[in-house]
Amino acid sequence: MAHIHELGTPAALIDTQRMQRNIERMQKRMHSLGVGFRPHVKTTKCLPVARAQLAAGAQGITVSTLKEAEQFFAAGMDDILYAVGMVAGKLDQALALRQRGCDLKIITDNAAAAQEIGRFGQRHGMVFEVWIEIDTDSHRSGIQPEEEALLEVARTLQDTGMRVGGVIAHAGSSYDHDSHAALLAIAQQERDGAVRAAQRLREAGFACPVVSIGSTPTALTAQQLQGVTEVRAGVYVFFDLVMHNIGVCSTDDIALSVLTTVIGHQQEKGWAIVDAGWMAMSRDRGTQKQKHDFGFGQACTEDGTVLPGYILSGANQEHGILSRIGEPDHGIAQRLPVGTRLRILPNHACATGAQHPQYQAVLPDGSTEAWPRFYGW
Amino acid sequence: MAHIHELGTPAALIDTQRMQRNIERMQKRMHSLGVGFRPHVKTTKCLPVARAQLAAGAQGITVSTLKEAEQFFAAGMDDILYAVGMVAGKLDQALALRQRGCDLKIITDNAAAAQEIGRFGQRHGMVFEVWIEIDTDSHRSGIQPEEEALLEVARTLQDTGMRVGGVIAHAGSSYDHDSHAALLAIAQQERDGAVRAAQRLREAGFACPVVSIGSTPTALTAQQLQGVTEVRAGVYVFFDLVMHNIGVCSTDDIALSVLTTVIGHQQEKGWAIVDAGWMAMSRDRGTQKQKHDFGFGQACTEDGTVLPGYILSGANQEHGILSRIGEPDHGIAQRLPVGTRLRILPNHACATGAQHPQYQAVLPDGSTEAWPRFYGW
Repeated sequence: MAHIHELGTPAALIDTQRMQRNIERMQKRMHSLGVGFRPHVKTTKCLPVARAQLAAGAQGITVSTLKEAEQFFAAGMDDILYAVGMVAGKLDQALALRQRGCDLKIITDNAAAAQEIGRFGQRHGMVFEVWIEIDTDSHRSGIQPEEEALLEVARTLQDTGMRVGGVIAHAGSSYDHDSHAALLAIAQQERDGAVRAAQRLREAGFACPVVSIGSTPTALTAQQLQGVTEVRAGVYVFFDLVMHNIGVCSTDDIALSVLTTVIGHQQEKGWAIVDAGWMAMSRDRGTQKQKHDFGFGQACTEDGTVLPGYILSGANQEHGILSRIGEPDHGIAQRLPVGTRLRILPNHACATGAQHPQYQAVLPDGSTEAWPRFYGW
Repeated sequence: MAHIHELGTPAALIDTQRMQRNIERMQKRMHSLGVGFRPHVKTTKCLPVARAQLAAGAQGITVSTLKEAEQFFAAGMDDILYAVGMVAGKLDQALALRQRGCDLKIITDNAAAAQEIGRFGQRHGMVFEVWIEIDTDSHRSGIQPEEEALLEVARTLQDTGMRVGGVIAHAGSSYDHDSHAALLAIAQQERDGAVRAAQRLREAGFACPVVSIGSTPTALTAQQLQGVTEVRAGVYVFFDLVMHNIGVCSTDDIALSVLTTVIGHQQEKGWAIVDAGWMAMSRDRGTQKQKHDFGFGQACTEDGTVLPGYILSGANQEHGILSRIGEPDHGIAQRLPVGTRLRILPNHACATGAQHPQYQAVLPDGSTEAWPRFYGW
């Protein structure tokens, strides 16, 4: 329980009040839209955060690796969706989870993988619950709602005795927009595509009880989700500068920051050198092509007040270059002397968190609690 | 000792033969230039790799965090340079290392930090050995060789009873070039600036025994290093696509790769979807502004043969998009079916390694050994 002033730097801080506010905002929204909510825990890989999400009303979790599934299942969470296409090489791990009692759902978007899942399931006497991945915005994987492959995959699963549990879509292209109108259109398209795919499956005789969609921008924008049963989102719990630029949060909502110390200056260039480089921030430059480029992050005072115009303009492994946008601040060594402690708001909370073995959860009185996170596969 | 074909994906592979060849190439070069070599272990944070570097003739190690110093010291390495500017908040940790017998050298480039070090040393009866950081190419931190501040920092250290052990320079701007002539000029400038700074210190009465310089590109290019006592370099041990573009290695020298599995396709776009996203590759886009943009990495077969033109063109957290540069490969699902295992060469070995809790060292017979790495601060 060190006080924030006593923490070594760099360190990943969670503003627990902001986090709780973000969790409640999303949960309330899902409630009013009449859908379940299954947070994506890949953002934090952190038990206390997932517990806070479930306590607020989330139903189950989404994971990006089977290691996450194992870790969260070991902590007592058993309704888990593994939202990356299953392949043969990972079926042993999935089987072990199912055999230990984990209600693990897996996904696929192609007949080859569906066949592998089916054969493996038959061989081991396991009926896997499989959700079919739907592509509603051409951004990555999935089957388009009207494609013939949709029914082919469902039939392959059924023929091998597997359970077609639902459809899953993720409108990842929502990250490329920053107007409410565009987000609304993508949210509608995500909902419509998933609901249509489920309809086709049902018309062909598959039960398809679940219609799962989501991304943070669409979840916070959608106006109606008729036919959808659950929504998934991850980064909303912390938010970040990319989400700020997309327009779904303000900088005051960003719950994750990196605590850093000024270690030197290049006064004539207007640079302060800090001990948060890309190892602490990640190499994510997600704001580079957005309307406001924050470099590697937005500088704040140690208590979290934004320093307008001061960003982490460069990053080496353990060195960050902090400077003012536009006119160099030749008084930076006086303004931010060696030893000054600052917080840096990240471009991308998922990527920044991944650089740290633990978060420091900052409580309202400034005391901190170490919240471990895990990584790897 | 799993065989490479049995490893789960994604996984970070080290080709141990290439690694050993890279180590020997650098060590031989340093020997012929008549200088000591102090590898930067921040690239790997991995004990077996550092041991191989020392076994080949390296004298001491360079670290980027005090945690690295602690871990490598615990493993019996005691000649350690911490090559990031020291600040007050980290002196307790440095003191503890010195008191346990670690021959830790620290650095500074400003009088404020020098004074903190001196006062702290006096208070605890510890004579810290401090090297002064020199800026030879305006890329980050350090004092320029002719600046008055150089002598001011040395005097501050001397007046408080600390030891001015040497000067240290790092020509980080070498990463911005790709011609032998340009690298030669930067290497010369790095050497000249460091030697000149040492000369000024000696003329002012400071012993300054060490003149330490280095970066992988300059270390592999410099033609003469008269007056230099040691060279530092990190990424040479694995190399990567950035170094390939700079011109100091070929793709056949790159010892680090990420093993991945094809999990799906978008045939009409010519995409294969793989299970190596940015979590496995890092968000480093270091080749973006270089002469050849490799996206998030160069695809190879599982045995390491380069697939010319096939790169990881996109990356989400656990999804990579693999495609052909130029004309889409509409036969990609036949060429690389679901389940195909590939290796991806990384843009930046330091950043990619940091995403993995361990490397899998691949021996010539295809058997593998887990080599743990650590992270955090």
